[in-house]
Amino acid sequence: MPAWEAYLAANRPKFLDGLLEFLRIPSVSALPDRADDVQRAARWVADRLQSAGVEGVRILPTGGHPVVYGEWLHAPDKPTILIYGHFDTQPADPLELWTSPPFEPAIRDGRVYARGASDDKGNMLAPILAVEAMLQADGALPVNVKFFFEGQEEIGSPQLPAFVAAHRELLACDLAVSADSVQWAEDQPAILVGLRGTCAIQIDVYGARTDLHSGLYGGLVANPIHALISLLASMRDTEGRILVEGFYDRVVTLSAEERAAIAAVPFDEAAYRDQLGVSALVGEPGYTPRERNWVRPTLEVNGIWGGFQGEGVKTVLPNEAHAKITCRLVPNQEPEQIVQALVSHVERQDTPGVRVEVRAMPTRAAPYVIPADHWGNRVAADVLAEMYGTRPYAIRMGGAVPICELFLTSLGVHTVSFGFGLEDEQFHAPDEFFRLSSFERGPVAYCRLLTRLSKRPSK
Amino acid sequence: MPAWEAYLAANRPKFLDGLLEFLRIPSVSALPDRADDVQRAARWVADRLQSAGVEGVRILPTGGHPVVYGEWLHAPDKPTILIYGHFDTQPADPLELWTSPPFEPAIRDGRVYARGASDDKGNMLAPILAVEAMLQADGALPVNVKFFFEGQEEIGSPQLPAFVAAHRELLACDLAVSADSVQWAEDQPAILVGLRGTCAIQIDVYGARTDLHSGLYGGLVANPIHALISLLASMRDTEGRILVEGFYDRVVTLSAEERAAIAAVPFDEAAYRDQLGVSALVGEPGYTPRERNWVRPTLEVNGIWGGFQGEGVKTVLPNEAHAKITCRLVPNQEPEQIVQALVSHVERQDTPGVRVEVRAMPTRAAPYVIPADHWGNRVAADVLAEMYGTRPYAIRMGGAVPICELFLTSLGVHTVSFGFGLEDEQFHAPDEFFRLSSFERGPVAYCRLLTRLSKRPSK
Repeated sequence: MPAWEAYLAANRPKFLDGLLEFLRIPSVSALPDRADDVQRAARWVADRLQSAGVEGVRILPTGGHPVVYGEWLHAPDKPTILIYGHFDTQPADPLELWTSPPFEPAIRDGRVYARGASDDKGNMLAPILAVEAMLQADGALPVNVKFFFEGQEEIGSPQLPAFVAAHRELLACDLAVSADSVQWAEDQPAILVGLRGTCAIQIDVYGARTDLHSGLYGGLVANPIHALISLLASMRDTEGRILVEGFYDRVVTLSAEERAAIAAVPFDEAAYRDQLGVSALVGEPGYTPRERNWVRPTLEVNGIWGGFQGEGVKTVLPNEAHAKITCRLVPNQEPEQIVQALVSHVERQDTPGVRVEVRAMPTRAAPYVIPADHWGNRVAADVLAEMYGTRPYAIRMGGAVPICELFLTSLGVHTVSFGFGLEDEQFHAPDEFFRLSSFERGPVAYCRLLTRLSKRPSK
Repeated sequence: MPAWEAYLAANRPKFLDGLLEFLRIPSVSALPDRADDVQRAARWVADRLQSAGVEGVRILPTGGHPVVYGEWLHAPDKPTILIYGHFDTQPADPLELWTSPPFEPAIRDGRVYARGASDDKGNMLAPILAVEAMLQADGALPVNVKFFFEGQEEIGSPQLPAFVAAHRELLACDLAVSADSVQWAEDQPAILVGLRGTCAIQIDVYGARTDLHSGLYGGLVANPIHALISLLASMRDTEGRILVEGFYDRVVTLSAEERAAIAAVPFDEAAYRDQLGVSALVGEPGYTPRERNWVRPTLEVNGIWGGFQGEGVKTVLPNEAHAKITCRLVPNQEPEQIVQALVSHVERQDTPGVRVEVRAMPTRAAPYVIPADHWGNRVAADVLAEMYGTRPYAIRMGGAVPICELFLTSLGVHTVSFGFGLEDEQFHAPDEFFRLSSFERGPVAYCRLLTRLSKRPSK
């Protein structure tokens, strides 16, 4: 057994206490009221890096939520690995659907339940614990390591493009590794070869000066909810095809090989439906469910509200209605172009009697692709095959990890996704959890990954 | 000056204190939590009737919110007048749009601001104060009077049909007079010749077991908000025509005379738009704005909600979405039939991957018509002409007063609307108010009305 492995085993209780402490910080990046908590989470991460033996630790301003940086660069002639994760979380509402409070982590049945447990706090700790173990047990790392943790992933990393561009030298590396990722199943690993991008808008519709009586004014005065329904119905047909002009212009047509590669990953539709509690999977005709989720774009209304939401009946003609929309984007759609197409579409619609405001929201991520046979993916695949006893699937993910495309364009390196979340762990939903078995597996995997990566010399 | 007029003038401060006390009771009939307050309002009304000298005062159970009854029946050979009003109010939200708290009445610029000030507490006090004045000043009333005040008007009076049917003898009368009504303007009276009816449904759409990540599941799993948008878009076209099968089947076509009578009531569209703060009036093509509001049915979404409503972006695929709908009905639509047509329409739609629940809500009112030359309307018109110095317009109202149709079918009498609200008084909306000048005018008008009604002998 390598010395680091004994260190990891001996320190498990301490590591778990640290995770629980980290999860108690409600670092919700979307809520302005939580900005101090995001900052607090940044300090927690910086302290944790320092106590792990990482050098040059600092909290760097971005103009928004901060970045935490640290490094260990004493492996001459070895590659430099930039390790990425994020310490911010999604909002926790609807609170009433949580079994235990989202920021009071609770351990049940070998899982820790808390907002951010899997996405991404539990996962981003893995490489820190791995580095601590190797530094404490061996006194050195097999490669050079730079840590880059951000606090704005869940809002689409609005300040990161400028930040990364301004810190190209500090962040220069041979490969990036993202701890914000998943495996296929508890007994089946995966390497990630594609991510969708995202962009977001909000639509606000305003009618009369105040709410009105639906009898005294109904038939005369435009109802903003009706106008909003028309707008939303004009953007997306009932099957999921997006009707916004220009939306599909740059979407790459799937090759037969790509479709075959996707079809090679097993998909048990009945089990999937059961797990989610739905009677049918739906979406754009002409594509398999996996294709629709991995390589086809979507337009999703994330929230809608207007008028009376209480119990019973209120005969009101409301004067406001609102909707939040995000799109999932695929190669080669550009977030900026799509957001403009959405805004233009809404602005072009005829909505007499109401005032429509449509805004691009800062959330923005380009779609990302990394070849399955990229050297970083090959090394990761070998580590995973060794640990799981089976070769990883080559998968895509419907979600976005904006940093991958950013590292590629700004730093010229690909990002290997190397995280240990599992898809059922309720990211962005009530009762998010992380398996304690994954929390143990992650640091071991990272020690092995860094060891194997040392065999490729620096360029 | 009649003795009652001096009494009214002398007691104004006391009457106003009483109104403020009445307005402090948050008797919101739609909210189960407020049931005790509706009960408290009933007791307040019963006490007020008693102190006015009304006899046989009692609070009668209905199975829901109670009815308050009282009588004075010592005018042999004179007609018996059943006076109606309601002591329940609409909900007060959105609270943040009120200048002063809705249940802390505030007097500003000759107006009292509170939920229920105009609809209907300020108005329903007028006949009580009139009767007190005549009883105290003259020792008798010119006609027999029965008071009938309810506490469930704002939820569509679900228990009243059974209640009125079970109390036909107690409520027997020659004419009903409703204090839940409006005049045209401060200097222009009106008699009411038609009211729209109403009915209500709620649609609840359920998707996956929990909220999901819009990236990891988008393109696969049905979004209940999208299904709800499709359902709502299928019910009503963008111009306001209702697309529900059978909806228009029993709608009476307007005669040329009816259209002419409606056109005879002035309508300053530009001033109306300005008052409401809208750029255009909208609605069903082929009808004038007044026709659309008075004699054409509507389908109005009163509230919609689902998913994330906070600040910023949340990339969630929500698992619930909801909408509340009321329709305004016109002769000869039947609420029960329309509610069934709405429910059937929703149930017939294809909504793969989600579960749709649609329910009829208890709110139900038939449309109502009373001839302009009905004897009660002629007497009311004469009183109003005398007080305002000009003949009243014959108007309809877009709202519903369910009791009118109920009295007609159950008691065989028409209802004369005789109230002093004005349309700008924000019924059902924030900053509802009642003019103190109307609060003074109402009791005087009721004394004159009862005096003139005494000239028609009992049947």
